[in-house]
Amino acid sequence: MPRIHNFSAGPAVLPEEVLRTAQADLWDHNGSGIGILECSHRGGSFDAVLKSAKDRVRRLLALSDEQEVLFLHGGARTQFFMAPMNLLRGGRATYFDTGVWSKGAIDDAKRFGTVDVPFSSKAQGYDRVPEPGEWGALPEGTKYLHYTTNNTVAGTEYQYRPDPVLGSGSGKAWLFADMSSNFLSRPVEGSKFDYIYAGAQKNAGPAGVTVVILRKGLLEHCDPELPAMLKYSTHVESDSTYNTPPVFPIYIVEKVAEWLENNGGLAAIEKRNIAQANRLYGAIDGSGFWKGKAKQGSRSRMNVTFTTGSEDLDKRFVKEAEAAQLSGLKGHRLLGGLRASLYNAQTDAAVEALVGFMADFEKKNG
Amino acid sequence: MPRIHNFSAGPAVLPEEVLRTAQADLWDHNGSGIGILECSHRGGSFDAVLKSAKDRVRRLLALSDEQEVLFLHGGARTQFFMAPMNLLRGGRATYFDTGVWSKGAIDDAKRFGTVDVPFSSKAQGYDRVPEPGEWGALPEGTKYLHYTTNNTVAGTEYQYRPDPVLGSGSGKAWLFADMSSNFLSRPVEGSKFDYIYAGAQKNAGPAGVTVVILRKGLLEHCDPELPAMLKYSTHVESDSTYNTPPVFPIYIVEKVAEWLENNGGLAAIEKRNIAQANRLYGAIDGSGFWKGKAKQGSRSRMNVTFTTGSEDLDKRFVKEAEAAQLSGLKGHRLLGGLRASLYNAQTDAAVEALVGFMADFEKKNG
Repeated sequence: MPRIHNFSAGPAVLPEEVLRTAQADLWDHNGSGIGILECSHRGGSFDAVLKSAKDRVRRLLALSDEQEVLFLHGGARTQFFMAPMNLLRGGRATYFDTGVWSKGAIDDAKRFGTVDVPFSSKAQGYDRVPEPGEWGALPEGTKYLHYTTNNTVAGTEYQYRPDPVLGSGSGKAWLFADMSSNFLSRPVEGSKFDYIYAGAQKNAGPAGVTVVILRKGLLEHCDPELPAMLKYSTHVESDSTYNTPPVFPIYIVEKVAEWLENNGGLAAIEKRNIAQANRLYGAIDGSGFWKGKAKQGSRSRMNVTFTTGSEDLDKRFVKEAEAAQLSGLKGHRLLGGLRASLYNAQTDAAVEALVGFMADFEKKNG
Repeated sequence: MPRIHNFSAGPAVLPEEVLRTAQADLWDHNGSGIGILECSHRGGSFDAVLKSAKDRVRRLLALSDEQEVLFLHGGARTQFFMAPMNLLRGGRATYFDTGVWSKGAIDDAKRFGTVDVPFSSKAQGYDRVPEPGEWGALPEGTKYLHYTTNNTVAGTEYQYRPDPVLGSGSGKAWLFADMSSNFLSRPVEGSKFDYIYAGAQKNAGPAGVTVVILRKGLLEHCDPELPAMLKYSTHVESDSTYNTPPVFPIYIVEKVAEWLENNGGLAAIEKRNIAQANRLYGAIDGSGFWKGKAKQGSRSRMNVTFTTGSEDLDKRFVKEAEAAQLSGLKGHRLLGGLRASLYNAQTDAAVEALVGFMADFEKKNG
């Protein structure tokens, strides 16, 4: 059986050449005579993988020397509490509430300090992110501004980087971003961020590793009294190998980053991502049958949410699409409807197949 | 290039038939048309993997219905603090100090309560574990007894299960075990334990997932005020899918457990493990040249530590062994010397090759 078209919101489709290389390396990594699952995390074979993964992420995001790249366990969910546990410490932070993941981060942050939420689109089904500056001024004393760059459930995405200017105009708060679901999908000025985290299982790799980028200057502000595994300093000092790291997920991130760099980097992948998103949004907007769910201007290139407007028809669509080897098109259980995820490794062929199938479905049911 | 003999202490050698299956499933998992790295963690394909992994672990360890099997992020190191954070809560616990991993668990536990350490072999280079009952009575009010069933660094292993009887004889403390490095290597009466944890990357799979087994009754004693990811109840209630679990490591654990069950279960693998350990310890004891490091009675079947007695000769041995395609024989940096790890998937051929190479080395240098 051939591979089918996979529109899963994550874990998600990966580049086929990465999979082919991984198949070989499972048996014998890089001619070492030992498989990638079986080599010591303190040996030369994995050292090279880890170093290359860091270097590639650093180059792709245009990070400065003042930023550390870490590969941690625990998923983005662990960063939801680990960041405020280390850095909020009874202080004040601003979070934008743009979806279920933002909400999770807010809930955890509240345990560690005062959380201001000057923007929420919850009442509108999270159909948009804020416009630049719409949140007003950050209260004096705000330690950081946290936002979620792309929202997988509602299918919204920031097309700009919020500026964390304090209300007094006297300075800036730190800028924190959960980039899980559009990580490495477009050029970002990585050096403008004080803290970035991203679960790998969308654009960057499989489930099981979270990329964390931290400005070194923040380390001195971290709570020194935490268990070792919960301190960022532990992982910085040990170069992500304080305990056995998730070797294979890191290995795949390195291979995906290599694939990106060999194919023109983030500028090139952004072009492809825009083209695929335009093709699908175009098909939706050009029909009287399909309705996009996210507001114009907030639409995500990664997760296209749409609906027929009828729950029954949406269900039938998912079922018939599955039979036509178009998988993973059901919307998130919280919002319903339909969703097609177009991460970096999504193929043009898959998008064409989906658009064609949608046209046929409309003819039959429109 | 063929695969070489891999004596790494972990991540470590895995069964070759598991690797062959994984190679195929990276491309197309189980005929689904989607690779195992790319399928949703909320879909039927992974649901079946997770359920089977749980069921197999449950059967292999002879667990009762009162015990939950979880697959968590963060390594055993995360369990070092997560267990006392949830369950010690200012109370009292006993830990045995039998190596660097025990020590790590003790250090983290001290943050959350009073820790009694009635046995330590630290001053003797951790050359043994306690004899049954050697620790005397557990103080009244002790919540749990924690021990490390096998110590990878020093090469020691308990050949019995400590009985956590309270000093007054009035009852028992809970029994907690870090089984990371001999997990699934021998039959254990799993139902006797209240809490077991094991990083998978020795006998059970690759790095990136920790198996946690918890008696349900303990949940009501857990701190309810922790961030969601740090509460055992979160993971029990969500069946290990509160956030995206480490899909691929769990998949490999399932395949390894299948391999065990298809080959006679833990009784059969124990036989093989004993035979391999006897072969190597026999070679050490039968020579005047090699010296075993762990005390008789505490010797590990998993990690055989030995030395020539000379640092220079040990170094030369590691180098020449590597050239002869015998990899990973260097002792842990904390203790030096030599170490051969004989986890479940270690082959008889590798052990024979090592014993032969040792005999040659002795002839040349003895």
